[in-house]
Amino acid sequence: MKLEYTLMQKSKRNMARLGEILYNGKVYKTPMFMPVGTNATVKTLSPEEIKEMGCGIILANTYHLWLRPGEDIVKKAGGLHKFMNYDGPILTDSGGYQVFSLAHPKDITEEGVHFKNHENGDQLFLTPEKSIEIQQKLGSDIMMSFDECVKWPSSREYVLNSVERTLNWARRGKEVFTSKDQMLFGIVQGGEYEDLRKHCAEELVKMNFDGYSVGGTSVGEDKPTMYKMVSYATKYLPEDKLRYLMGVGDPIDLIENVMRGIDLFDCVSPTRLARHGHAYTKNGKINLKNSKYKEDFTPVDKECSCYACKNYTKAYIHHLIAAQETFGARLLSIHNITFLTNLMALIRENIANDTLEEFRDKFILEYYGEGYEYK
Amino acid sequence: MKLEYTLMQKSKRNMARLGEILYNGKVYKTPMFMPVGTNATVKTLSPEEIKEMGCGIILANTYHLWLRPGEDIVKKAGGLHKFMNYDGPILTDSGGYQVFSLAHPKDITEEGVHFKNHENGDQLFLTPEKSIEIQQKLGSDIMMSFDECVKWPSSREYVLNSVERTLNWARRGKEVFTSKDQMLFGIVQGGEYEDLRKHCAEELVKMNFDGYSVGGTSVGEDKPTMYKMVSYATKYLPEDKLRYLMGVGDPIDLIENVMRGIDLFDCVSPTRLARHGHAYTKNGKINLKNSKYKEDFTPVDKECSCYACKNYTKAYIHHLIAAQETFGARLLSIHNITFLTNLMALIRENIANDTLEEFRDKFILEYYGEGYEYK
Repeated sequence: MKLEYTLMQKSKRNMARLGEILYNGKVYKTPMFMPVGTNATVKTLSPEEIKEMGCGIILANTYHLWLRPGEDIVKKAGGLHKFMNYDGPILTDSGGYQVFSLAHPKDITEEGVHFKNHENGDQLFLTPEKSIEIQQKLGSDIMMSFDECVKWPSSREYVLNSVERTLNWARRGKEVFTSKDQMLFGIVQGGEYEDLRKHCAEELVKMNFDGYSVGGTSVGEDKPTMYKMVSYATKYLPEDKLRYLMGVGDPIDLIENVMRGIDLFDCVSPTRLARHGHAYTKNGKINLKNSKYKEDFTPVDKECSCYACKNYTKAYIHHLIAAQETFGARLLSIHNITFLTNLMALIRENIANDTLEEFRDKFILEYYGEGYEYK
Repeated sequence: MKLEYTLMQKSKRNMARLGEILYNGKVYKTPMFMPVGTNATVKTLSPEEIKEMGCGIILANTYHLWLRPGEDIVKKAGGLHKFMNYDGPILTDSGGYQVFSLAHPKDITEEGVHFKNHENGDQLFLTPEKSIEIQQKLGSDIMMSFDECVKWPSSREYVLNSVERTLNWARRGKEVFTSKDQMLFGIVQGGEYEDLRKHCAEELVKMNFDGYSVGGTSVGEDKPTMYKMVSYATKYLPEDKLRYLMGVGDPIDLIENVMRGIDLFDCVSPTRLARHGHAYTKNGKINLKNSKYKEDFTPVDKECSCYACKNYTKAYIHHLIAAQETFGARLLSIHNITFLTNLMALIRENIANDTLEEFRDKFILEYYGEGYEYK
């Protein structure tokens, strides 16, 4: 079945919006944070745990699944949902980001990208058509167009050419997109150049995608630049379709970018931080490896209702991390994803009351302390 | 609360017995397999998962917990049960086995053992008194006496002296044992020498321990030798007390040693095999890494009712193991522990009907195929 999005409410003070996703008989609320399940598994967690945390869409990586186990095997398994036993919505990226970040492409041509498999060095070639073909076989609910994710900073000239390539690639991908049950999103690139973001967004909108993503952020730019990039894109996007900011998951960025009109976020941070012993708290991130937690018999967050905080102490998690026991990463993954899921719920509550700016100011004060400056 | 054991039924054809353990208001049936939670966590699993699989007692390693986080921290946490959030019974070993197998002791004296911390090389000294002191602080329900686990083969002269040392150490440990809520077991050593096993067992019985373990097996000996060692010990042990065979978990060994009067088993195999991609099935172990499972969309065992077999295919688990995703080890750990737990339930059923020998023969035929010989 195809996912349906409905815009429910808009802020009068900024671009924040409330929406609902209807999928497989269930309603999921946006804005939403989506955990990343790179290899068709959210690292250390079961699908049941993911649902229990109140997650909706999860993300899987096309690049990784293309290389292993291969899209044909996933298709034979009955698609990603059956393969990984997840009946909620699944989003796949285009593979482009991993090609550029992991595989260090040899050659970017109009036709596609030549690069090496990051694990065994095999020569590979990915095109817009191939990316859609793979994603159709994977059977995700939301697919991404193949795009070029440019570095930051990049010259205006480079980005200008790159945007044209991304638009051509989006068009070519859409032409081979035949699936009735899946959605295909266009990706707005354009670096930090407002006219290029505008041009890219407007051209994509003419092609009439099922939703739109903002790409080319989280590539080394500072926060004010990221927020500008997002604004430059969202203001040219239609209100009745989903908007997804790719690869962004820092708590403050969720709040700021919701205010700039974003509905969906994904990021590996909550699970990656967990594997390194870090936990989000409303007073900032803490490192459970720190020896000061050795005899701290209180939960990571007293007010948190997640499985980890209800049942385990910082001392126990400190011990598990020190002993390299994966149950430690599992507990912190549960806590960190719950933290972001709860944060999104608070964000939605404050959109409903149109108090998101006050909420942001209070959040910053608690999370970073006095004197935080990013603008 | 102290654990209570009741012998319920004895086979007329061999030494197999049915019993019940009453603990914290719950009844657990013996013979029983106990999963190992070395660092106060059964690798990759939650306490809820362990209980769902029908496990009762779990084991934790005194050596590891002594070194990290340290028994004082576990005590301050309220003991092992609170620390790791497990309300079922917990058994701790004495630390002796790890001292001999991991730390390569420099010096075994009558007083105790000098050795190096296997992680950082620090000089350490463990004595019978210290082992009991640590285990009392850990707060397990069943504690082990400190013993010398001799290699196989060892000369009669060496084993003779070693048994005397183990008996002295058992006596010294019992003298400092003051806890009202814990049980202390004596450990029968004596290698493959019947008179030494008999002597060791009889002397320990005179000291009146709460239960008895059989040690010095799984040290490289063949199966007929192991079974002999067990018989040489159990026939001199009182019927009304628990008997625990340490470190044994191969399926056929569970059946054979139940027939020789054993009630409790532990082994790292189900979780260690899982981390290496192996799964037990009634037709023998299979290696999920094998590429023949790449497109096998059936469960590990069609008849198995565990979480892994109900929800996932061999192809998915093959993929997870290949991608080094810990969820793969988690699924196989659940399957393997369930396999042993179900095997113990079948063993108990066949003790009740006094058909364990027929069950063993049928099990061997299915598990190993025709022509298996170990006697």
